[in-house]
Amino acid sequence: MPSGKILVAQGGGPTAVINQSLVGVTLEARRFRSVERVYGAWHGVRGIINEDFVDLTQETSHNLEMVANTPSSALGSTRDKPDMKYCQEIFEVLRAHEIEHFFYIGGNDSSDTVRIVSLEAQKANYPLRCIHIPKTIDNDLVGNDHTPGFPSAARFVAQAFAGANLDNASLPGVYVGVVMGRHAGFLTAASALGKKFPDDGPHLIYLPERTFVVDKFLADVKQAYERFGRCVIAVSEGIHDESGAPIATLLAKDVERDAHGNVQLSGTGALADLLCEEIKSKLKIKRVRGDTFGYLQRSFIGCVSDVDQREAREVGEKAVQYAMWGERDGSVAIKRTGFYSVDYELLPLEAVAGKTRTMEDEFIAPSGTDITDAFRLYLRPLVGSKMPDAFRLRFNPVPKRMNRG
Amino acid sequence: MPSGKILVAQGGGPTAVINQSLVGVTLEARRFRSVERVYGAWHGVRGIINEDFVDLTQETSHNLEMVANTPSSALGSTRDKPDMKYCQEIFEVLRAHEIEHFFYIGGNDSSDTVRIVSLEAQKANYPLRCIHIPKTIDNDLVGNDHTPGFPSAARFVAQAFAGANLDNASLPGVYVGVVMGRHAGFLTAASALGKKFPDDGPHLIYLPERTFVVDKFLADVKQAYERFGRCVIAVSEGIHDESGAPIATLLAKDVERDAHGNVQLSGTGALADLLCEEIKSKLKIKRVRGDTFGYLQRSFIGCVSDVDQREAREVGEKAVQYAMWGERDGSVAIKRTGFYSVDYELLPLEAVAGKTRTMEDEFIAPSGTDITDAFRLYLRPLVGSKMPDAFRLRFNPVPKRMNRG
Repeated sequence: MPSGKILVAQGGGPTAVINQSLVGVTLEARRFRSVERVYGAWHGVRGIINEDFVDLTQETSHNLEMVANTPSSALGSTRDKPDMKYCQEIFEVLRAHEIEHFFYIGGNDSSDTVRIVSLEAQKANYPLRCIHIPKTIDNDLVGNDHTPGFPSAARFVAQAFAGANLDNASLPGVYVGVVMGRHAGFLTAASALGKKFPDDGPHLIYLPERTFVVDKFLADVKQAYERFGRCVIAVSEGIHDESGAPIATLLAKDVERDAHGNVQLSGTGALADLLCEEIKSKLKIKRVRGDTFGYLQRSFIGCVSDVDQREAREVGEKAVQYAMWGERDGSVAIKRTGFYSVDYELLPLEAVAGKTRTMEDEFIAPSGTDITDAFRLYLRPLVGSKMPDAFRLRFNPVPKRMNRG
Repeated sequence: MPSGKILVAQGGGPTAVINQSLVGVTLEARRFRSVERVYGAWHGVRGIINEDFVDLTQETSHNLEMVANTPSSALGSTRDKPDMKYCQEIFEVLRAHEIEHFFYIGGNDSSDTVRIVSLEAQKANYPLRCIHIPKTIDNDLVGNDHTPGFPSAARFVAQAFAGANLDNASLPGVYVGVVMGRHAGFLTAASALGKKFPDDGPHLIYLPERTFVVDKFLADVKQAYERFGRCVIAVSEGIHDESGAPIATLLAKDVERDAHGNVQLSGTGALADLLCEEIKSKLKIKRVRGDTFGYLQRSFIGCVSDVDQREAREVGEKAVQYAMWGERDGSVAIKRTGFYSVDYELLPLEAVAGKTRTMEDEFIAPSGTDITDAFRLYLRPLVGSKMPDAFRLRFNPVPKRMNRG
């Protein structure tokens, strides 16, 4: 007889809407008669190993709704990437608790974890339904039109650049804003949505999809600065030279790597400072400022896309439906069906796990330092309603009277 | 016969609501029959010298309202600090254009500019009414309960720390957030408003009002980290050692100074990186991340306090009323009259100009690394309505089954 127990966990970097998916799973699961208990694991797979479970069935629906609207991972997260031994430990715990359905909300590393757990379950002949629920601000999951979490982060970046552009117009100079995104430039490209008037910044956008050449960069900045009297630049933290070496590591003394072998690019202002220093020293521009948006991009409370909220909730709901009515494990994916409308499908885990989507060529302008209208059209509906808008005074000049020569 | 011309300009760093004051002046002035033209100077006093004027009387009230809701200085700003010669040039231009009222929206440097211009006007026996309109995210103008621009920046900082705390709880480690504020710690202290539960961060707050001792800092972080298993730290960019030397300059290779002799503290991630490096190397904590909030604090579009908006509008309106009905130059100041209610008064320019308010002792906890309830009560009404709120899952643990020893 089935135990009626399901387990949900959150992995990888938090987003503004990852709790929507958690609550989507929890509330939808409770609508199935067969589900008796919804457990959550604290801190992802690490919490499974440690049997750190919370009974979400004992939550009130009101508090769940409030948690859904709270950014970051309410269950906590982990950067652990289970190997074979780790997965065997997971099974021991799942078996002991008679867990029948495992939902893991995360990015490509987390989807690979789900894939391994699913395979191990099959090998062990253990009846476990494993569903990966997509989440990443990087928008780098293959097979998805876009990924929950990205639209809200994109909205933050667009609003940040809209403001930075106004600030830079007020006190002209060069402004460099460094945006998250190791391999995929989607989030950096979202900076373009902060642009309203033709002379607004960002005037230059540097993506990890294109090789970064310092001399070319300086020439671009010089040209834009001469043209606009100022220059706002969006730079991905993942920009690299032609050998593939991140520009950021040229500066970093100690390179820190996580359990996935990834170099730490966030949580340091080194890249922005390096680029500013180059501009100051080589172009002799005095007012050069750099900001690294850092963790605010994914955690800032109060900047969220309503479209993103809704979809993040839906992927959680659909995950439960696929698990209860479907015949196979998989990864929930978002398909665009209209302008703007989406539907969902369950992709095989192998189709998503461990793969990285980068920006399609059609989204990047031939110059390599701008995005296309195709990208603008792709992104606009995702960032949701009530986007703040910037207005200017109109130009009604007063005739001069001083007759100065 | 009076010319009926007034001039308004914006100086210093932009804020989220400085355009409310600009529009407050413009719309209120147009209600006075004696006012025929409202001019704006592009880029502050620099625009006066250059006769770069825009006729705001030709604006529509609709566009003015839209501009009022747009952050940063719609007229542009300047860091110029007029000396005697500069002021004489200002007079020549004002005389030539028959300007009768000069409104300058800015911080303590700008108020000093207004003071000098006012004195020069008196010396030259030129009938010019000069009013300073307060603005600064630093909240460091004396004679004011608080300063327009500060509440919105405080709201940004509170929301940023509320999110950073959630992110840090999800993936525990040490997080350092560096906040603007050269001499006054008000904005850094606002980080405490992001705190909801007793174990929420920021766990430590470092203000420029207290001497920063690196060894004490490390001991504080160690203690908090051991207690909470993580640590969120708010640091003012203006922290300094006992000699008064900014901690930031210990790292900076080239120290840049503006026309006011101020060292550049913003637009670089050096301080955060330095502090993170200290924590990593001395405390052997692996996951240490630093963000420098930078220009987002004052320019981010879409994070504004409605109370701040209203008051910024009112100081502009009151400035015009004081100019039209009053007998003297001065600086508009905000007085708190209830919880929560304010009124305005016109202070003598000498009472405000060039002076710097810092945080009162009653706002800083004896530990020196926290704020008091008095400050919480002071700040809460300023950040306005609809503050986003963070919710947690309640603790309903599931009994362990593994009997691991």
